[in-house]
Amino acid sequence: MMQRFAINTATLGFQCSIEESIEAIAAHGFGGIAPWRREIEGQNVSTIAKRIRDAGLKVTGYCRSTYLPSLTREGLQANIEGNRRALDDAAVLGADSFVIVVGGLPKGSKDIVTARAHAVEGTAQLLEHGKKLGVKIALEPLHPVYTAERSCLTLLSEALDMCRQIEGAVAVPSLGVCLDVYHIWWDPNLKRDIARAGLEKRIFGFHVCDWLVPTADVLNDRGMMGDGVIDIPSIRAEVEKAGYRGLIEVEIFSERNWWKQPVAEILKVCGERLATSV
Amino acid sequence: MMQRFAINTATLGFQCSIEESIEAIAAHGFGGIAPWRREIEGQNVSTIAKRIRDAGLKVTGYCRSTYLPSLTREGLQANIEGNRRALDDAAVLGADSFVIVVGGLPKGSKDIVTARAHAVEGTAQLLEHGKKLGVKIALEPLHPVYTAERSCLTLLSEALDMCRQIEGAVAVPSLGVCLDVYHIWWDPNLKRDIARAGLEKRIFGFHVCDWLVPTADVLNDRGMMGDGVIDIPSIRAEVEKAGYRGLIEVEIFSERNWWKQPVAEILKVCGERLATSV
Repeated sequence: MMQRFAINTATLGFQCSIEESIEAIAAHGFGGIAPWRREIEGQNVSTIAKRIRDAGLKVTGYCRSTYLPSLTREGLQANIEGNRRALDDAAVLGADSFVIVVGGLPKGSKDIVTARAHAVEGTAQLLEHGKKLGVKIALEPLHPVYTAERSCLTLLSEALDMCRQIEGAVAVPSLGVCLDVYHIWWDPNLKRDIARAGLEKRIFGFHVCDWLVPTADVLNDRGMMGDGVIDIPSIRAEVEKAGYRGLIEVEIFSERNWWKQPVAEILKVCGERLATSV
Repeated sequence: MMQRFAINTATLGFQCSIEESIEAIAAHGFGGIAPWRREIEGQNVSTIAKRIRDAGLKVTGYCRSTYLPSLTREGLQANIEGNRRALDDAAVLGADSFVIVVGGLPKGSKDIVTARAHAVEGTAQLLEHGKKLGVKIALEPLHPVYTAERSCLTLLSEALDMCRQIEGAVAVPSLGVCLDVYHIWWDPNLKRDIARAGLEKRIFGFHVCDWLVPTADVLNDRGMMGDGVIDIPSIRAEVEKAGYRGLIEVEIFSERNWWKQPVAEILKVCGERLATSV
């Protein structure tokens, strides 16, 4: 039954090599892995890809884009180029999608309108490249607390509007969204927008973790499923009702707690909570 | 020119008595004050009200409601009652509006649907009481980072929908919204929704401060106008284009910085920044 679930390697706190992560995740019976560029770049990507396949794992998403907005046109173009190379790697890995976190305000800027325009322009160029490679692009709207530093794209409705703006209404989209309960659980329009994402066939990924109360650090104090206040089973039900049949991925940034645990313990608890609290 | 601006006493870190705050705020030429219940309750409210009037200050908003959602009906009713008494005080103070922060999930609950229903029910009852007293109610949507613990009401559009749901479309609303740049600056629909709030005559208050990068603590590390990334003049222009002519109120929660400064220094810098960065 764990075959339905994937582990994002960030959950393991980058304590071990990608080879060890692949082995441990497969050994615990999970069906997929989502690696990060820091584990892949500068290595033989084909060899890692083969290792993942041989372990029987799918690659859900490849994490993640360099932030797009820049103070200059040249900076924007450099950011796009960096992501182009990452997309090449995503293709070699056989990733179901390349995850784009668009980026926030460039340092020194208060101009969110231009930041958003850069996000659109960069994503449009990367979509063209992804289509050639056969790699889908998943936009991940982040929680609004990250607007300044990580993502000026926050609402699910906004991400869907952006998909429509860039790709138009198509039967089989190559541009979609990655839904992470941490980022979207608070949204009063969540049910409506998940249904819309399903109708538009744009749900490319679904991530779970939990929102702790209190949260000591909004970046790296995310909770294990069941330890926080998100009604994850409700959101999962909406996502599945919307037609999503892909893997459900665990992504937990937890400097204070889980990253201090051994990898095997983290994976064991993930398995338990996926069975009871998701 | 400072007459156009008001100081929320939280900005001063509750370092001094309400009487001293009134005197200092008036002495610096500001036109209004927004006191908190902790400064008022258990005291002679009429005496404080007279003192504020005598100092030539208006009372913009009275801060703020007890959180409404509860695990039980009895708890909800008790929360409403507490706010009813605060509304009585708001009337004595001559406050332009009573500020409602609706509250988040009751401890132990993951049921955001019921929390939202409690917010609506409580606000509806308080609106009736406010109308009798001649005190307007200002719903303050908070930044989504506060959903769990402080406000399941987050989007401006959601707050306007709630006003409409409770009061209907009326020519002179008694239920409106309080806009705080800290809570709404990131919203991709901000321009649209401010215009709507204006058309519906529901802008009852406008608060300024800034979003610092990095933010050490999302509750009490807010910035002085100009020190963060919010394009405050743009938002102010939208709010004024939407017809708002009320006072602009400074509300800064700053445990690490401003609350450690003398009251006179805080007020001096507020005055400078209101002239240059708002």
